[in-house]
Amino acid sequence: MPNLSDKGVYLPPSPIRKLVPYAEKAKSRGIKVYHLNIGQPDICTPQVAVDAVKNISDHVFEYGHSAGNESYRRKLVKYYESVGIDVTADDLMITVGGSEAIFMAMTICLNPGDEVLVPEPFYANYNGFAMEAGVNIKPISSTIANDFALPPMEDFERLITPRTKAILICNPNNPTGYVYSEEEYAQLRDIVLRHDLYLMADEVYREFCYDGTQCISVMNLKGIEQNVVMIDSVSKRYSMCGVRLGTLVSRNKAIIAAALRMGQARLCPPYLAQVAAEAALDTPASYFREVHDEYAARRNCIVEALNKIEGVYCPMPKGSFYSIVKLPIDSSERFAQWLLEEFEYKGQTVMLAPATGFYASCYLGHDEVRIAYVIKREDLLAAAECLREALKVYPGRKTTR
Amino acid sequence: MPNLSDKGVYLPPSPIRKLVPYAEKAKSRGIKVYHLNIGQPDICTPQVAVDAVKNISDHVFEYGHSAGNESYRRKLVKYYESVGIDVTADDLMITVGGSEAIFMAMTICLNPGDEVLVPEPFYANYNGFAMEAGVNIKPISSTIANDFALPPMEDFERLITPRTKAILICNPNNPTGYVYSEEEYAQLRDIVLRHDLYLMADEVYREFCYDGTQCISVMNLKGIEQNVVMIDSVSKRYSMCGVRLGTLVSRNKAIIAAALRMGQARLCPPYLAQVAAEAALDTPASYFREVHDEYAARRNCIVEALNKIEGVYCPMPKGSFYSIVKLPIDSSERFAQWLLEEFEYKGQTVMLAPATGFYASCYLGHDEVRIAYVIKREDLLAAAECLREALKVYPGRKTTR
Repeated sequence: MPNLSDKGVYLPPSPIRKLVPYAEKAKSRGIKVYHLNIGQPDICTPQVAVDAVKNISDHVFEYGHSAGNESYRRKLVKYYESVGIDVTADDLMITVGGSEAIFMAMTICLNPGDEVLVPEPFYANYNGFAMEAGVNIKPISSTIANDFALPPMEDFERLITPRTKAILICNPNNPTGYVYSEEEYAQLRDIVLRHDLYLMADEVYREFCYDGTQCISVMNLKGIEQNVVMIDSVSKRYSMCGVRLGTLVSRNKAIIAAALRMGQARLCPPYLAQVAAEAALDTPASYFREVHDEYAARRNCIVEALNKIEGVYCPMPKGSFYSIVKLPIDSSERFAQWLLEEFEYKGQTVMLAPATGFYASCYLGHDEVRIAYVIKREDLLAAAECLREALKVYPGRKTTR
Repeated sequence: MPNLSDKGVYLPPSPIRKLVPYAEKAKSRGIKVYHLNIGQPDICTPQVAVDAVKNISDHVFEYGHSAGNESYRRKLVKYYESVGIDVTADDLMITVGGSEAIFMAMTICLNPGDEVLVPEPFYANYNGFAMEAGVNIKPISSTIANDFALPPMEDFERLITPRTKAILICNPNNPTGYVYSEEEYAQLRDIVLRHDLYLMADEVYREFCYDGTQCISVMNLKGIEQNVVMIDSVSKRYSMCGVRLGTLVSRNKAIIAAALRMGQARLCPPYLAQVAAEAALDTPASYFREVHDEYAARRNCIVEALNKIEGVYCPMPKGSFYSIVKLPIDSSERFAQWLLEEFEYKGQTVMLAPATGFYASCYLGHDEVRIAYVIKREDLLAAAECLREALKVYPGRKTTR
């Protein structure tokens, strides 16, 4: 039997995945598990999108355009206009989820062995796409001590080598909930210009900003139009994570042309997903207001409850629907497993995402977890209560001083 | 502005794509273009699949399992059983079209710089996936002189180097329509064993075999179970090319485990596609009989019409819905463009796929084109008539002797 390739062997497993069997076992023991670990919202997909799928009149589910259906791209241009991003349909490549857009951006902009700087903690799946593209992620640590603001420019400068070709950010951020400010973007712009780098921005949480915070798009940074690649997705915006439809956006025509050639190899993005997504562009503003208010209320509720627990610190995130939480524990992976394997409170427990999965630096994240506030408020409160009781008895608890 | 990566620059464009603007111009001049160039069937998607989509009752289009929905995989096992392939749900990884399955297979089995042997002419998009995976395709020429049978084993032996890790075949074949025999499979099995190679087989045209020809699956070759990866897709079977759903099949657990890790990075295959595909598994046998009979009649009709034209040779393909046709011309790319740009017969012309796009050897395919018989018989006959008239006046015609 021949050996697998290096990529086949080393593709990184995620610490959350390792917990899944423990969660299943807990459930089979009759324990109710509150899922703070996942980003699958319970919010309904907009009815216009569901109806479009139900009212489909095609007799053949045919191949579409490799860059995505033209009618969809043209309508998307208007959506982008409505959020202050001025692009044409030719600047858009419709992809199989934001995932394919990230893989394409890495493959097109970086040679194998090249480096992309990514502020950590970062969305764990960037590791998988980088591995597939043969690209090396160089993490730049941001810290909970300053609520995960952009690391200072000296940190970027220190890590830049002749192989550094790009910076990848996620804004609003998964997993921290941080939203970059105008000043932080000005810094990014400067360093991109100074070192002639690509700036890739994953902006799939654009709609989820709280307290009046403005989400700035990389598409609106002046003077680096040819360096910028934006990654977008319908997954969270319309709570349709399963349809798998994203967009790679760039004003750099060579990037879009290369993405189209990659896209032609895989023929087209999923057709039924485009039916749903095109219709979703007519979602009434009231839907987003309701969703926004619901998430803001959930955020306030869980952050307040967590910060009341002795030794726990949860920053108040300005965007997305995640936060990194600091806990008085020895190991987030052990704690998360212990919660599922050995703990229960009133027949309930909590599943958390160990933050170690979001850091590339192996010494970070051991006393942090990521929470997603995508479940109902009463469940969030019950989960926080469980966590409070768990921390009282967890054998690996660290005493704070 | 930073440079693109080598892959971003060199991803190969396809000769068919270059013709698209010429076809559009012809249509804008009011000329009817018969599309013999594409593999988009006009056959209806099975009604059970369309109905399943229309009757969807979900309120949230959620993430599914990264390996594909369990209910779908379990039902697929029964489908494979019905075509004589004995697998379990754990041997299946549901992918975004056959495309993702091929990319995964290459990435998992071959390191960048490794070689995969592929009989040419071959499906042009293998080039794109190989480029993305950093893998080198080494073509082994099969010829129209013996109807594109498997090249002799000496040809394989001659091309095998220490970097050769796999053989990739397509059966029934796109673009030749050839179906490999038991003897040919025995040869493949021997060489795979002798050199400890992976054997990857793209079997997406399994349902399209004519004249009682049996389509043998690589999954049924004895003694190389751990070396075999099968690629499958619902695109052609159920005429739902646009949904983008495929399967990577292997009894080698390490391959499936690696595919699952790649799949976890991109989260899940498209949900609505799985709704359609799972329902399609209940398509009545009568659908396949009708489709089979229709394609067989189309094949007979176009092959007969083409072989009546002086200087033209079209083998009688045993499977898929393609054939490579030899024409008395100087250049298939020039001829295909000339047909769209300068020729018309009764206000009609034909779009062909130059065979050069299916050969990796640059000196092959210049007097061959691929046809797809996925349009109605009367249109096929009208297309053949156009072709006959075109060859009478084409300036680059070669006289046969």
